[in-house]
Amino acid sequence: MTRPNHGGNLNWAASIANCPTSLILDFSASINPLGPPLSVIQAIQDHIYSVKAYPDPAYPELTKALARWHQLPPEYILPGNGSAELLTWAAWELSHLDLTHIMTPAFSDYLRAAKTFNIKLNACPLDVKTGKWKVEANPALTQGLILNNPHNPSGRLLQREQILPYLEAFALVVVDEAFMDFLPSSEEQSLINVVTDYPNLVILRSLTKFYSLPGLRIGYAIAHPDRLRRWQLWRDPWPINTLAVHAAMAAIEDKIFAQKTLLWLKPTREEVFSSLQTLTPFYPLPSCANFLLVHTSIPGSSLQEILLKEYQILIRDCLSFPELGENYFRIAILSKENNQKLLTALTQVVADDRRI
Amino acid sequence: MTRPNHGGNLNWAASIANCPTSLILDFSASINPLGPPLSVIQAIQDHIYSVKAYPDPAYPELTKALARWHQLPPEYILPGNGSAELLTWAAWELSHLDLTHIMTPAFSDYLRAAKTFNIKLNACPLDVKTGKWKVEANPALTQGLILNNPHNPSGRLLQREQILPYLEAFALVVVDEAFMDFLPSSEEQSLINVVTDYPNLVILRSLTKFYSLPGLRIGYAIAHPDRLRRWQLWRDPWPINTLAVHAAMAAIEDKIFAQKTLLWLKPTREEVFSSLQTLTPFYPLPSCANFLLVHTSIPGSSLQEILLKEYQILIRDCLSFPELGENYFRIAILSKENNQKLLTALTQVVADDRRI
Repeated sequence: MTRPNHGGNLNWAASIANCPTSLILDFSASINPLGPPLSVIQAIQDHIYSVKAYPDPAYPELTKALARWHQLPPEYILPGNGSAELLTWAAWELSHLDLTHIMTPAFSDYLRAAKTFNIKLNACPLDVKTGKWKVEANPALTQGLILNNPHNPSGRLLQREQILPYLEAFALVVVDEAFMDFLPSSEEQSLINVVTDYPNLVILRSLTKFYSLPGLRIGYAIAHPDRLRRWQLWRDPWPINTLAVHAAMAAIEDKIFAQKTLLWLKPTREEVFSSLQTLTPFYPLPSCANFLLVHTSIPGSSLQEILLKEYQILIRDCLSFPELGENYFRIAILSKENNQKLLTALTQVVADDRRI
Repeated sequence: MTRPNHGGNLNWAASIANCPTSLILDFSASINPLGPPLSVIQAIQDHIYSVKAYPDPAYPELTKALARWHQLPPEYILPGNGSAELLTWAAWELSHLDLTHIMTPAFSDYLRAAKTFNIKLNACPLDVKTGKWKVEANPALTQGLILNNPHNPSGRLLQREQILPYLEAFALVVVDEAFMDFLPSSEEQSLINVVTDYPNLVILRSLTKFYSLPGLRIGYAIAHPDRLRRWQLWRDPWPINTLAVHAAMAAIEDKIFAQKTLLWLKPTREEVFSSLQTLTPFYPLPSCANFLLVHTSIPGSSLQEILLKEYQILIRDCLSFPELGENYFRIAILSKENNQKLLTALTQVVADDRRI
């Protein structure tokens, strides 16, 4: 099996760890360990026979529910088969521009979509250690911009005010906010509240991470109605399965789950962060999301292999982010108990340096 | 609400019929009324927590199961989020050719995909009354061909030998076999058994209609491994949800369901066909699939409206097929009892001509 480009590939991990996939403790995909909410599982159960009928291509109930949630007119919402599907159509639009700037290190699916439609890319590196980043528009060209906020894999957060000037300078700005739900409302920096002012803004959101539903495929775009109507005509008519529709509507109604998640995340992340700081070869970077990027003097892929083979623990190596390479790994924040298993394993690996 | 382009839009139908969607008797989507198989519902139930993990982008188990079913190497199979998703990538390939010929009347999603990537199309009309069809390649151009077999909406079947010469003449031939499962093995005309001989052949298949799973989104392409590897790099990494994966694997294992469906279809279709022949304004065309195209001297859209408003019955008007327009409607073959409801309603509408 070839090394995967994304986290969460349990088949691959199990083949290295030589165990069933169910025994892998997965820190590689940044999924909320509290989910999926029971309300969501119940909604899937209750609507299991909805698979018998075609979804309505306009997905009216889901669109309205998401719109109400974000206090936007429904025309500003387009649900998708995960935000990855919507990225394809964002890329198709970007491919008609001269050049697209991209914040790096970048989630590899941005690069996939860009490659599909032969987009000319200009990498704009984020300094993951300081959080400093900027991009300069070339006024002679039509240009796009892809960034994500909070940034994956670093967990850095850009301030809204930092992004707004780019909306004046670029023909199309795609902001992936897949992890924004993990921030309390007093700290979040979503651009949703300015989307009606900027027809050149596309916000991508996902229910995958926060509600632990990566297998169900459910994301959405928030953008100007003209743009979303265009995408709707381009894409196949029924991209979102009916169980995902019902799951998504139940998920956003579950305020208690959301509250629990926010209460759990901050102190748990701080605990893992502090523990990692005490382990000399590691240097965790401050993160506002449900994962930590960790600088390591042990090569990330070797560490990954040892943890898999000896502990059935899967961390995310950073080889698919060429800017980070062997010097970093990424871990999800999981339950107290599981985080402790990882920290114990890391401590043992560090202590027993013959294995490195 | 605007008139839908596809069958099966129950929200629209319910708004016309002024009743809940659950009361609509749907003849507009050509879905097997015997399904979904209980084995499939059970598989979804059993794997409901599989939504917690990302699918493996290679979908190895499903790919292998489909390959075994068709006695092909797994590299020849690419599962998709319904065959509609795969059509997008077929269209992206076709857009690099000079011209694409398309059998008409055509399933409107072919036209959607063609428009998305600005494909130059040449319509090649099928004579739905005789089943005669041909297409001529222009040797000065690189050309593609899209056809479906059995043909939707007519139910006509092309013989394998009729298609083979086109595989010599065209750079890319896309054959949508979404309804081929409805033919017994002695009659089917699938090109699957020649796919290893023609790297320019793409076969699209669907589990939607036969297994009554349109809400779950599951189809697959059968084509040369090089082509499928290319599509896999173009598209998003996780197009198929994990519940669809488990449902599909259960579906193709359920041989009893398949057998029951084949035993039910032929006599039931013949019964509806003969009954329609006795109703003067209607003229059903011979079909090998699970639907009938019916010529009508009452305008199809008026008939649809009367049936909806007075009987909560939804038939498929043919306005989205410009070659057919008001002169035709399409109906699915449903259970004996439901078919009788339709036939009774049609008989009453014909008898009471004040409503037309």
